[in-house]
Amino acid sequence: MPRTLHLALSAYGVGGPGQHGLWKDQRVPKNASVDIDYYIRQAQTAEAALFDAYFIVDSQFINASYPAHYLNRLEPLTLLSAVATHTRSIGLVGTASSTYNSPFNLARRFASLDHISHGRAGWNVVTSFDTGTSRNYGLDEHLDYPTRYGRAEEAVDVVRGLWDSYEDDAFPADVDRGVFLDPSKLHALDHAGEHFRVAGPLNLARSPQGQPVIFQAGVSEEGRTLAARVAEGIYAPGGTLAESQAYYRDIKDRAAALGRDPDHVVILVGAGPVVASTDKAAHRLSRDIFEADNDFDRKLGFLGRSFGSHDFTPYDLDAPFPDVAHLAERSGRTRGLEIVRQARDENLTLRQVVETVSEYTPSPFTGAPDTVADALEHWFAAGAADGYNLRFRTHEDLERFAADVVPLLQKRGVFRTEYAGDTLRANLGLPVPANRHTLARESAAR
Amino acid sequence: MPRTLHLALSAYGVGGPGQHGLWKDQRVPKNASVDIDYYIRQAQTAEAALFDAYFIVDSQFINASYPAHYLNRLEPLTLLSAVATHTRSIGLVGTASSTYNSPFNLARRFASLDHISHGRAGWNVVTSFDTGTSRNYGLDEHLDYPTRYGRAEEAVDVVRGLWDSYEDDAFPADVDRGVFLDPSKLHALDHAGEHFRVAGPLNLARSPQGQPVIFQAGVSEEGRTLAARVAEGIYAPGGTLAESQAYYRDIKDRAAALGRDPDHVVILVGAGPVVASTDKAAHRLSRDIFEADNDFDRKLGFLGRSFGSHDFTPYDLDAPFPDVAHLAERSGRTRGLEIVRQARDENLTLRQVVETVSEYTPSPFTGAPDTVADALEHWFAAGAADGYNLRFRTHEDLERFAADVVPLLQKRGVFRTEYAGDTLRANLGLPVPANRHTLARESAAR
Ligand SMILES: Cc1cc2nc3c(=O)[nH]c(=O)nc-3n(C[C@H](O)[C@H](O)[C@H](O)COP(=O)(O)O)c2cc1C
Ligand SMILES: Cc1cc2nc3c(=O)[nH]c(=O)nc-3n(C[C@H](O)[C@H](O)[C@H](O)COP(=O)(O)O)c2cc1C
Repeated sequence: MPRTLHLALSAYGVGGPGQHGLWKDQRVPKNASVDIDYYIRQAQTAEAALFDAYFIVDSQFINASYPAHYLNRLEPLTLLSAVATHTRSIGLVGTASSTYNSPFNLARRFASLDHISHGRAGWNVVTSFDTGTSRNYGLDEHLDYPTRYGRAEEAVDVVRGLWDSYEDDAFPADVDRGVFLDPSKLHALDHAGEHFRVAGPLNLARSPQGQPVIFQAGVSEEGRTLAARVAEGIYAPGGTLAESQAYYRDIKDRAAALGRDPDHVVILVGAGPVVASTDKAAHRLSRDIFEADNDFDRKLGFLGRSFGSHDFTPYDLDAPFPDVAHLAERSGRTRGLEIVRQARDENLTLRQVVETVSEYTPSPFTGAPDTVADALEHWFAAGAADGYNLRFRTHEDLERFAADVVPLLQKRGVFRTEYAGDTLRANLGLPVPANRHTLARESAAR
Repeated sequence: MPRTLHLALSAYGVGGPGQHGLWKDQRVPKNASVDIDYYIRQAQTAEAALFDAYFIVDSQFINASYPAHYLNRLEPLTLLSAVATHTRSIGLVGTASSTYNSPFNLARRFASLDHISHGRAGWNVVTSFDTGTSRNYGLDEHLDYPTRYGRAEEAVDVVRGLWDSYEDDAFPADVDRGVFLDPSKLHALDHAGEHFRVAGPLNLARSPQGQPVIFQAGVSEEGRTLAARVAEGIYAPGGTLAESQAYYRDIKDRAAALGRDPDHVVILVGAGPVVASTDKAAHRLSRDIFEADNDFDRKLGFLGRSFGSHDFTPYDLDAPFPDVAHLAERSGRTRGLEIVRQARDENLTLRQVVETVSEYTPSPFTGAPDTVADALEHWFAAGAADGYNLRFRTHEDLERFAADVVPLLQKRGVFRTEYAGDTLRANLGLPVPANRHTLARESAAR
């Protein structure tokens, strides 16, 4: 079977990354971020276009300078449960922080979604970007990188252990013998680690795809280590083709070095295609969208997000970029330190940094349908991506992509023409993990 | 307007309290507890019968001796989100423990459900019955009563504070002025209490009914204090008419003493009606159901639940009931200590205790439709209940109640013939709480 690419839709209400002014668009309901019908319609459109997954990012912190969508959004698992019963085949991936959740709770909620969706749940494991989140959970300071990522890795292990509490045949429900549960197929976890102690078992049968799919998003050294060890899907940040190729190679190599099959780590590059009838029209549209929302104060406010929601308004805009490297250390270190480095190397003022980090850079997937299909195919063939996590401005933009670009990808044989199955694993080409206790019993019997 | 009663449906899959062997019933799917279509159908039937609410209890601990439904169940909030988009008017009350959840997380998930359901969410605040839960959350011992209930009270305060993060008019979304959020209508909480420190604000707009409705279930002194102070709905345990009257009076008096309107604490008594064509047939049915599931070992196992999941199998069945009062102290103290007291007073052996606590006691709501309607009306009129939290064995039993008993209650004028509105508050007759910050501003302006 020829290798085909995977598509996820990253869902936002009134504006995702780089779409701060979207709420002004007449076509977008002002309360789209909390309108469940809006999400259901998005997911159904993506499903009709045979997307692998519907993807919900998350944060648990805001301040007033955040863009519209961040200010007011539904909690991912409740959102996805509602979407689940209005869709049939599309995967449902929810972002949840391992830093500010308990693994028992996470295990329950994702397994529950997997039952409700009949095998379409995925957990995007993040360690929380926004440092201010800590103060919503009783901690003065965001946990540092090693602690956050150590916790993330252990949390995934615990959650997967809990997902194996019951073997697949634990419930004979045999009326004649009066046996509902076979207690020998129910297993406590008795986990005692550095970050968690969890006895188990989980009070939920093994889910329809064995275990929900583990996604990961985070590009630091620690993030890559986590990805290589546990991720079955990755939300990669994108950037240039060369950057994406380097990231792709690095992750696949790391996974292989750990004895994993690199094909079982599906890398989806984040992308926001802009499609119009001609390349020129698409580039004009892209530029217009940028200009319409080109507000300095807003950008100054948003810059703070890479530095623990730091308030940059008191600084002199025309003095050299302030020394805020230490503020990046706990939050989006990778991004924050990049900004600091560039400011130092190029001797930039605060004003120049704001202009630089929010410079107009069109998506590499901007153009006529053929151009966009070319680019998507090229990155895929060139070892930069196994697929894409796509975001669109409006529902109309998603519909246009589905109508004009997806058929081209299909004609070229790089995208499916029907779902391989009705679970997320089936469509991502991921194996169903065998229950560890069943495996252990079988290997003991040999 | 004459006072009318309220009805909730307590939803279970393969067997709620006292229905341990339900999974053997041909009409119940063996996996009903995790079958979302089963729940959706239940909720729709209850909605067609104009029930106020659909109610999901919860636990986060099991061992193999637990009855079928407890072993394998969906997490309440994911379950209810899925049900939300398939119903229109019925309230959706989910049980969540304040002992093993963070208030920020709880606030988000319930507010999210309130948005998804357009104003029908309720939180049943419990402190967790099953002591073993603590070991799923890193604690060797279940928190003691004062700590659990102190935490519960503070959790409700924090959650309500977070629900008021945004004033109702915080999002003008005014394109001409370029203003999406009015930042003066966004409020941090900055809570620092004995159990929690939570900065806020919540990243979710105020929900359609102002705030989700707070329910409570727990009958100890501490539980009643909590109920009187914060509950707008109560899931009361039932028992005899006299016991229910005493409980009802006590709660209403406590609420009044705190300056609250006792009508704004809606007491729903738990009840499992058994309806048949004649009283005699209903009593025979009730007895048959009991006998079919009258298994000593199972009852011995379940007795442990009131004593921190204590294993009673090693004890001599015919020796005096063992000294396990201390084991009740942390878990279902009220119930556990009652059992200990009775055993001592009546000089019972362990075997006798098992037989006594699981003695056949027909529901006071057993009989022909008229008899059941009489009893429901009588308890309501006699100051024992504002309504009922009903559980049924099978879907067919719910349908029978809807078809045969509900119309009688309507004919007598004690139950609605149409919904008062499409929010849970509207149907329970509860006011929409004003946003505290709006109130403060208005009172400062006066
Ligand atoms: C493409 C991408 C998407 C992400 N999505 C989220 C998200 O939705 N919520 C979140 O808290 N963090 C998200 N993260 C951030 C990670 O959680 C991580 O905390 C942060 O990026 C800092 O770690 P890093 O330096 O390893 O990337 C995302 C990261 C990447 C690269
Ligand atoms: C009618 C009723 C229903 C309850 N439902 C639950 C439940 O679903 N989950 C739970 O953990 N506890 C539940 N509780 C128990 C309380 O959480 C509490 O922990 C326990 O009853 C001990 O407290 P108490 O002595 O105050 O009742 C319920 C209690 C009552 C009276």
